[in-house]
Amino acid sequence: MHTTDNILSTDVGANVQFSRGIPPLESIPAATLSRLTETVAKEERDTVFQYAPLGRFQGNLELRKQLGIFHDVDPDTLFVGNGSLQVLDLLTAHLLSSANAHVFVEVPTYDRAAHIFERHGARVIGIPIESDGIDLRYLREQLQSHVPAFLYTIPDFQNPTGITMGVAKRRALVELAEEFGFTIVEDIPYRELRYHGVAAPMIRTSGAANVITVGSLSKVISPGLRIGYAICDPTTARSIASIAENTYLSPSPLCQAVAARCFATGLVKSNIEHIRNLLRPRHDAAIESVRRFMRCALLAVPNGGYFLGLRISTRADEETLLATAARAGITLTRGSGFYPQGASQPAGTLFLRIPFHAICGDEFAAGIERLGDVVTQLSV
Amino acid sequence: MHTTDNILSTDVGANVQFSRGIPPLESIPAATLSRLTETVAKEERDTVFQYAPLGRFQGNLELRKQLGIFHDVDPDTLFVGNGSLQVLDLLTAHLLSSANAHVFVEVPTYDRAAHIFERHGARVIGIPIESDGIDLRYLREQLQSHVPAFLYTIPDFQNPTGITMGVAKRRALVELAEEFGFTIVEDIPYRELRYHGVAAPMIRTSGAANVITVGSLSKVISPGLRIGYAICDPTTARSIASIAENTYLSPSPLCQAVAARCFATGLVKSNIEHIRNLLRPRHDAAIESVRRFMRCALLAVPNGGYFLGLRISTRADEETLLATAARAGITLTRGSGFYPQGASQPAGTLFLRIPFHAICGDEFAAGIERLGDVVTQLSV
Repeated sequence: MHTTDNILSTDVGANVQFSRGIPPLESIPAATLSRLTETVAKEERDTVFQYAPLGRFQGNLELRKQLGIFHDVDPDTLFVGNGSLQVLDLLTAHLLSSANAHVFVEVPTYDRAAHIFERHGARVIGIPIESDGIDLRYLREQLQSHVPAFLYTIPDFQNPTGITMGVAKRRALVELAEEFGFTIVEDIPYRELRYHGVAAPMIRTSGAANVITVGSLSKVISPGLRIGYAICDPTTARSIASIAENTYLSPSPLCQAVAARCFATGLVKSNIEHIRNLLRPRHDAAIESVRRFMRCALLAVPNGGYFLGLRISTRADEETLLATAARAGITLTRGSGFYPQGASQPAGTLFLRIPFHAICGDEFAAGIERLGDVVTQLSV
Repeated sequence: MHTTDNILSTDVGANVQFSRGIPPLESIPAATLSRLTETVAKEERDTVFQYAPLGRFQGNLELRKQLGIFHDVDPDTLFVGNGSLQVLDLLTAHLLSSANAHVFVEVPTYDRAAHIFERHGARVIGIPIESDGIDLRYLREQLQSHVPAFLYTIPDFQNPTGITMGVAKRRALVELAEEFGFTIVEDIPYRELRYHGVAAPMIRTSGAANVITVGSLSKVISPGLRIGYAICDPTTARSIASIAENTYLSPSPLCQAVAARCFATGLVKSNIEHIRNLLRPRHDAAIESVRRFMRCALLAVPNGGYFLGLRISTRADEETLLATAARAGITLTRGSGFYPQGASQPAGTLFLRIPFHAICGDEFAAGIERLGDVVTQLSV
C-alpha cells in the first residue's frame, strides 16, 4: 500500500475518474444505430421530418407498441418524452399542486431529479436509504406530519448508492402509499443492467393504482436518442401529453422512430445482454477492490447498474476529502450533491458515489487503493 | 355567389380546412434531409448517440457556429433547444421572478406561447395589435401600472394576424423598453418567408441590450428536427443552458448535427428560396380572394408567413359562427383561443386566423367565398 508520502508525491500514476456516470462508448451500439437511422431516414422521411400528428403527443405509436410489448402493458398507458428527466419534469408539473407540494425522496438520491422537484417549488423531504432500500420506519414517521404528492424512488441499483429495494420493502411501500394516499414514482434506468441474481418485481406490477414507472433508453441503447417514457394510467398519460404539447410539442420524431426499430429488430434485448457481459467483470472487480481496500465503507453490493456507494467515517470535511483525493490523482463527485437542501449526512461520515461501469478492473483497483490511503491519512 | 340556401344544402363541395398551421409537406426537403441524416449517422456516430458533452448544454457547437453565420452573431450568444416552444419555456423560467410575473403580449397572439407564460404563473396582459404592429399608446398606458418582466412579440407575419411591425414602431418599442426597463422577446419563425417587399430590421439589431430573439427551423427546413434557438447575451445563454441541463439535458444530438449540415450545405438558404416561390402564389391568390369576398374584414396584407387575419363584424357569437361555417364545409380555428385569459375582442366582432400556406388558390377562393356567405347570412 502507498504511504501518505507516496500519495502526496507527484508519482501517483494516471488520474482515476470516479466521477460522471455516462455510459461507456462500448455499451452503445453505434454502428447498428447508424444503420437503423439510415433506414428510418429513407423509409419514414415523409413523417419524421414533419410535426408529430395532432393527438399523438403521447409519443410515436409504433414506439409505444414496442414499449408495450417490452413491459407487457397497453400502449395507451405509455407516454414518451425527450429523455426521462423531461418526463419527470412533466410528471412533476402534473402531480404537484399548490395544496400539496411535498415530495419524498430517498437520501442520498439522484441530484438532477431532486433539482427538478425543487424548481417546481416542491418541498423535498429526504428519507434515508438502507442497504435494502428506503427506511420504512422513518418514512412512516414523516407521513404523520406530511403526506407527499409523490415519493420518488430508484428501486434498482439506485443512483447514487447502487442499492436495490428488497421485495418485502416494495410490498410494504405500496401498502403505505395506499394507506396514506400518495403516488409512487419509480425510476428504472438501470433495472435491466443486472449482473447477478434475480430482479425483484417492479413496484408498479404489484397492481397498486398509484404507481408510475419512469424508464429510459439512455443506459440500455443510447443516451443520444433522448428517449424516456412513463408507464401510468391512460388518463395520466393523456394529461402529461397535454402539458408536453404546451411545453415543447414532442421529442424528435426521427429519434422516436429509430427507437421503435431498436425494439422491433431485437437490438434492445441483444444490447442489454451485451452490456451485462461487458460490465459484469467491471462490477466484480470493483467489489473485490473495495472489499480489499475499503470494506467497511461499502453500503451494499449492487449486483447491477453503474455505481457503488461508500460511506467514509472521517473527521475531515468534504472539501478536504475532495482536495486530498485530487492531489492523489482521484477525481470524485461531491457526495453532498446527492442530498437535497435540508437533508444532512450522518455526523462524522461523508458519502461517495463511485462509478465502476466505465473503468477496467486494474485501474479501479489502483484508484480505490489510493482512495483507501487518502481516507486512512485523513483519519489520523 | 352562393345564396344562403346553397350554403345550407349538402352540395357544398369539398371541406376547406382553414385551421391548423403546420408546414405543407412540399415545403420540407425530406429527400435531402434523409441523405444528410444518413451522412451524420455514419460520420458522427460516436458522438450523436452519446450524451451531449458536459459544458455543451448551449447546443452543438457546429450548429451554433452555423446559426452564428446565418444571423451574424457570436456562437456564444446562441442557445439551442428542442423546438422554439421549449426555448420559450426555459426563457420564461429565467425571465420571470416572484417579484415580477407580468408578461405583455400582442392580442391576438400565438396561443401556445401565452399558455407557456400562464403555466409559469405569469399574469399575461394583452396589448392590441394594429395593422403596423403593437398599439404603442395602449402599451405606454399599461406601463404606468405594470412594467412586465418581458414583452413577447412576433414582429414578422405574426401568428395569428399576419401583421408585420413597422420600422418606426420597432424603434419606438425599443425606446420604451429602455425607458421602463423590460426585456423584449421577439419570436421570428416566419421572418424568412417573405413573398413581397423588404424586411424591417430585427428588433435585436437595434443594438438595445434587452432584446432576445427566438428562432426556429420548423418553418424553413423541418419541424421534425425540433430545433429552436435563442439569441441573447452570453450570460443569459449560459443561464438558460443551466435550466435546460436540469430539465432535460439537451435536445437530440442527432437532430442538432443534421441541422448544422442543413446550414453548412446551403440547404437552409435554398429551401427558403424554394418556400418563397412555393407560397408566394398561394399568398397572392388568398389576398385576391379575400379582397373579392371579404375586403372589409382583412386586418393587413401579410406579404409573408402562413396566415392572414380577419375581423368579422357580426352580432353572432363564436359558437354560431363556427357551427354555421362547419355546416358550410369550412373548418375554422376558434379565434378567441388567440386571446389570453382576460383579454377581450372588440364588441360586435370576431377574430379569425386564416392559414393560406397549405391551400391552393382555387380551393382557398371557394372557401373564402363560402365564408363570406356565412358571414353575410349571420349579419341578416
